[in-house]
Amino acid sequence: ANRKKIRKAFMNQQQPERVTPPRTDKLLFTPGPLTTSNTVKQAMLRDLGSRDAEFVEVVQGIRQHLLELAGVSQESGYEAVLMQGSGTFGVEALISSVIPRDGKLLVIINGSYGKRIRDIAQRHGIETVTIEVAENTPAVPRQVSEILSADSGITHVALVHCETSSGVLHPVQEIGAVVKGFQRTFIVDAMSSFGGIPLDVAKSGIDYLAASANKCLEGVPGISFVVANRAQLLATGGAARSVSLDLLAQWEGLENDGQFRFTPPTHVILALHQALLELDEEGGIAGRAKRYAANHAALLKGMRRMGFREYVPAESQSHIITTFLFPEDQKFEFEDFYQRLSARNMVIYPGKLNEVDCFRIGNIGRLFESDIESLLAAIEAALTDMGVTIFQPLDRI
Amino acid sequence: ANRKKIRKAFMNQQQPERVTPPRTDKLLFTPGPLTTSNTVKQAMLRDLGSRDAEFVEVVQGIRQHLLELAGVSQESGYEAVLMQGSGTFGVEALISSVIPRDGKLLVIINGSYGKRIRDIAQRHGIETVTIEVAENTPAVPRQVSEILSADSGITHVALVHCETSSGVLHPVQEIGAVVKGFQRTFIVDAMSSFGGIPLDVAKSGIDYLAASANKCLEGVPGISFVVANRAQLLATGGAARSVSLDLLAQWEGLENDGQFRFTPPTHVILALHQALLELDEEGGIAGRAKRYAANHAALLKGMRRMGFREYVPAESQSHIITTFLFPEDQKFEFEDFYQRLSARNMVIYPGKLNEVDCFRIGNIGRLFESDIESLLAAIEAALTDMGVTIFQPLDRI
Repeated sequence: ANRKKIRKAFMNQQQPERVTPPRTDKLLFTPGPLTTSNTVKQAMLRDLGSRDAEFVEVVQGIRQHLLELAGVSQESGYEAVLMQGSGTFGVEALISSVIPRDGKLLVIINGSYGKRIRDIAQRHGIETVTIEVAENTPAVPRQVSEILSADSGITHVALVHCETSSGVLHPVQEIGAVVKGFQRTFIVDAMSSFGGIPLDVAKSGIDYLAASANKCLEGVPGISFVVANRAQLLATGGAARSVSLDLLAQWEGLENDGQFRFTPPTHVILALHQALLELDEEGGIAGRAKRYAANHAALLKGMRRMGFREYVPAESQSHIITTFLFPEDQKFEFEDFYQRLSARNMVIYPGKLNEVDCFRIGNIGRLFESDIESLLAAIEAALTDMGVTIFQPLDRI
Repeated sequence: ANRKKIRKAFMNQQQPERVTPPRTDKLLFTPGPLTTSNTVKQAMLRDLGSRDAEFVEVVQGIRQHLLELAGVSQESGYEAVLMQGSGTFGVEALISSVIPRDGKLLVIINGSYGKRIRDIAQRHGIETVTIEVAENTPAVPRQVSEILSADSGITHVALVHCETSSGVLHPVQEIGAVVKGFQRTFIVDAMSSFGGIPLDVAKSGIDYLAASANKCLEGVPGISFVVANRAQLLATGGAARSVSLDLLAQWEGLENDGQFRFTPPTHVILALHQALLELDEEGGIAGRAKRYAANHAALLKGMRRMGFREYVPAESQSHIITTFLFPEDQKFEFEDFYQRLSARNMVIYPGKLNEVDCFRIGNIGRLFESDIESLLAAIEAALTDMGVTIFQPLDRI
């Protein structure tokens, strides 16, 4: 009778429920959260127990997958540690866990995210020096070399691979070679580039890389991760300044029984799992980079045709996000422009630079050239409606 | 032509895509992540920009809603601050942001979550004293009174409302009266009780309450929150030890422009929004408490009938989660029992106590009496299959 009862209960459960079809939202031409595939979102339509064998397996699979994307493996001495929260949580977990009390951090800054690393380090009382680079210019390896040879107290160097506030891409491999030449620890914030720009962690001399699910991996926001040189991570001992963001303890927990120390965002992690499968299907990082590069090329072509100018010279641009200067026409008001595009279901991003008036357009997420064309058409229509004319010298074309 | 292009693009987008029906997962009789409604999960089938007006409105709505559930309002001097991450992230944000460098914390401990508050405080170098209470016993207000009158250095008192490791419910209002009598700051971790047990924050003298979306609110994991006395929060100034978990800065960000300082888990937040609507539909906290209490009563009745004994005396139990002692029969092995229930699509939870062998069964989440009946039937079947007989003295019935 009991068995019958159970069977009946299961039958009730298995009856498929009505599903609301996913709404079509605005397309997000932003640095994240991004437009994701419906199948990534649908992966969240499950409630898995966080100690359940199936979930533990998903987590282990993701960790392996992330190492592969970073071009490394457990065998070659690396570990992937998932850390819940946005990318900043991952970066703070990293900075506040691996730099010892007597350590000294050099931060290469050319935008908001470099500054954020500095702020995090300072909040934790970590001695910090900086190299500040113009916001539209990549860091110069020679500068890093000079400061490292002048200051033997520096133990760690931090660089943002692709500075999201401008879109500048830094020569990470060359800077890594300098840092390793001085035998210092190299920390890279690859938040907006990981999965969208090929990067070999070992070859670039990267000891720690932080990134997040909701950028080029095209997952949803809520989980970040660190790819770490295991020997380095183990050597940090009890340096972590907080409990939640303790990177070593988090790794130990995941290694121990495959579980998170604290309730993980199970749905967000299921979405990341699906997103990684879809990255593979697209041909891995190379395939995804190709799509993003095509998006970027189409965007530049169309924007230049309308007379927009980019803030970062073409040779230093990434295909992740592009900063455009405001048109000189006084009739251009960003808020108005933004709202007109939003009304056309296109979301762009405000600027985040100190010295110039600009806005940003992202090429990442589940976006295709046809979406870029739609955006360009919407921009042209918005400018027409606003009465803005752009006939600037097209000196960058 | 452009407009036509745009319209065409929109028509392509609006074409509804095939939706995979939600899988039926195991029922989760755990302290979280929990079984949630399909509509809560379906609320995540959208990609909203985090600066988008619609999303900002959702966040403001949630903050208002949380204050209402806490029985307070902005007018009465309280604020709700969302903090991404699990409940522990919220608790650490709270502890590490509001206790000044020269503060001293009294933690009332009768289980893992009290210990965790102590560990967090100690990690941040906060001077900490504790009252340790037996794991199956509620804290006694007189004990708190004694220690506060003996130690005038104590500035803050922390209590876990419902200790999830045992299910014990503490007399929060009585303890609050003591704490306020001594004019100290009262911090309550209401992680597993908020939304499922009526609690008046102001009447209980609570200055700060931390809780999470994926317990009685029946959202998905990935976001926590703090309900704070505004004047107290403002007076903390720059006490926060970290950037990500800076409670005051987080509140200032949300107040400023309604936005998170760092990319929020938009999907998780949309699920919480839907979950709060469904809480209202159920008759608010009173309605939900009624369902959970019915689940709890059905569970106790069935488990007692089979001969199981509870660890916490009935009068100190909450209807959130119940700890059962292992049967004395040597044939009972928890791992085997767990797997047999899991194979029947029922997930229970291991114990988390120092001194006794036990397991836990949660009553919260989208579970009904019929689900409890299914679980009871599965337990009986599992015991039969294992050949376990329980004929303990039923001395608690």
